[in-house]
Amino acid sequence: MHLGTAALKHHEQKHYERDNIQRMTGYSWGEQPDAADVIKLNTNENPYPPSPAVAAALAGVDTRRLRRYPPPLANDFRDQAASLHGVQRNWIIATNGGDELLRLLVTTFMEPGTPLATTAPSYSLYPVLAAVQGCATVEVPLGDGFTLPRDLAAQANTAGAGLTCVVNPHAPTGRLFSVADVDALAAALDGLLLIDEAYVDFVDPDRGHDAVSLVRRHPNVVLLRTLSKGYALAGLRFGYGIAQPHIIAPMLEKTRDSYNLDLIAQVLATAAISDQSWARDNSARVRAQRRQLADGLQALGFDVPPSQANFLFARVPSGRDALALKHALQAAGILVRHFPSPGLDDRLRISIGSEQEHGILLQRLSELLE
Amino acid sequence: MHLGTAALKHHEQKHYERDNIQRMTGYSWGEQPDAADVIKLNTNENPYPPSPAVAAALAGVDTRRLRRYPPPLANDFRDQAASLHGVQRNWIIATNGGDELLRLLVTTFMEPGTPLATTAPSYSLYPVLAAVQGCATVEVPLGDGFTLPRDLAAQANTAGAGLTCVVNPHAPTGRLFSVADVDALAAALDGLLLIDEAYVDFVDPDRGHDAVSLVRRHPNVVLLRTLSKGYALAGLRFGYGIAQPHIIAPMLEKTRDSYNLDLIAQVLATAAISDQSWARDNSARVRAQRRQLADGLQALGFDVPPSQANFLFARVPSGRDALALKHALQAAGILVRHFPSPGLDDRLRISIGSEQEHGILLQRLSELLE
Repeated sequence: MHLGTAALKHHEQKHYERDNIQRMTGYSWGEQPDAADVIKLNTNENPYPPSPAVAAALAGVDTRRLRRYPPPLANDFRDQAASLHGVQRNWIIATNGGDELLRLLVTTFMEPGTPLATTAPSYSLYPVLAAVQGCATVEVPLGDGFTLPRDLAAQANTAGAGLTCVVNPHAPTGRLFSVADVDALAAALDGLLLIDEAYVDFVDPDRGHDAVSLVRRHPNVVLLRTLSKGYALAGLRFGYGIAQPHIIAPMLEKTRDSYNLDLIAQVLATAAISDQSWARDNSARVRAQRRQLADGLQALGFDVPPSQANFLFARVPSGRDALALKHALQAAGILVRHFPSPGLDDRLRISIGSEQEHGILLQRLSELLE
Repeated sequence: MHLGTAALKHHEQKHYERDNIQRMTGYSWGEQPDAADVIKLNTNENPYPPSPAVAAALAGVDTRRLRRYPPPLANDFRDQAASLHGVQRNWIIATNGGDELLRLLVTTFMEPGTPLATTAPSYSLYPVLAAVQGCATVEVPLGDGFTLPRDLAAQANTAGAGLTCVVNPHAPTGRLFSVADVDALAAALDGLLLIDEAYVDFVDPDRGHDAVSLVRRHPNVVLLRTLSKGYALAGLRFGYGIAQPHIIAPMLEKTRDSYNLDLIAQVLATAAISDQSWARDNSARVRAQRRQLADGLQALGFDVPPSQANFLFARVPSGRDALALKHALQAAGILVRHFPSPGLDDRLRISIGSEQEHGILLQRLSELLE
């Protein structure tokens, strides 16, 4: 015991982690309450259960197969995704959630000391991943009406950014940047462009939005897809990247953990992505709910910019305090997200829920705003 | 199409990945054949299926829960592991296989440019992870009879190694280093010591081997455990680390992917580690098979050093070629591992299989050696 105490004292004077790790702050995730009766509209989860094909696939899993290592490259899934997007298997990497793809991009393509570029606001994980790698983040404010910053490429190139990350549809605003705008950005950037399409499954089909053509045209473009949102599988941790093979290969063969995806996740994800009929129907339902919620919020005096994602980024009625409203909702068992940054702090980000959840939310808001 | 071709040509002159990534070679995993009838003794998988508690837990999974994010910290699992080892929850981190823990240690504690130290031979993933981080690897040869190198700490300290990795029981030799030897190593090292206990579940209980005491005494010791071997769950990708909280916290809160473990894996892993009765019985069966296989190989003229792991590292009979023997076995549908390095290339690493698999292996070897 005496030795142990001495050792612990020794530690108080010494830290083992790298200096940049000690200085940085970790990612702060949305609340994940255990209570089942909470109305959870804070982390953009799908309000509906995943495809029945997922349950059928799970029922077919024999745990005796788990004694062996899983397929290291998740080729069954990659083949399905490649077929869906009209590319070859070697244009696809399957990852443990979209987050793993983001980490792999930083690890593989960003030299420590060179910055990552993104918009402000953006997904708050990007600066965290950059900090782990010993990289700063250059944040370029969105234009008026949440448009893509005109000088994003110029600022990224001037700073020597190895990687520029753009969420599209954008989070937390819900704005969809056009393929033409992103095309011009890709052409202008010296480094890689990650288009984080976590929410793309909720874009109105009549927009004809398809960024896969950008991957074909640009050697520096990577698309991120996830099954967390559009396939209602946040709990499964499954995403993938689409890019030309010279971008996919070093992540697949060198920087990825060799067995990054367990057998069950591979089987279930392959079943999910194979059921495109379910995915289309789910997207239609979420989009219908999105219109309904936007109408309801506007009727209460919120300003609701158009969203192509599964959330709304609504400005609270003038004279109201967004953070206080968030807390009042929380006290009533309804979780939404608030971002305490200038220019964002008068808004709430509200995930699209079910019709019933929206009914309760709008009723509570109506009472709170009386 | 014209643009695409131009872009691809452009790429041929430019690579986007970091120079150290371009130069390095990725990890080379053992063959994972699809064929079910192969006798697979090449990647140290458990010959028996996992605990029935795992199948029961799987049957209880409701895929509707997958629409939500999983518990971010895997606290149910951490509590079970903490209880098993007699430590607090904050001494445990759960990871996507033991490999994720290794990566997190490198990311969190190794400054690019400082070396990782290990023995030669050792787990071939260590130098790969170091190379990704821009770090070299100092390899110190084992002593006679595969003993821990006497000068490992001195060489690691002289090189300024931030992390020293020792597999114990050692792979690929199967040698168990005593707690006293590892204790002395931990005390002598300036940096962290990772004790990779992937195979510790197969140590004879009468050895009384328990390295958790080292974690209590040393602020720089991390134990790696995995469910891949001793719990027959290589396909599940679940491991964990045990260390003092100042080592666990930066990995848990800063460098780990926020949702690194999916819901199903958490549920199944918690069920598996809760069934210690199964784990003890499985270990006893594998150890019985280990004795049987060692006897059989020795009867055929192999030199088989004592192993405390779930594999043997057997020197082929004098005058025989180990690689040729490996290939001949492969042609007969039996996979074993061969390491083409000086001092190791006269041996085969053979995972412990079932009694039936051993019977076929020994019969084939007997024919091949006639």
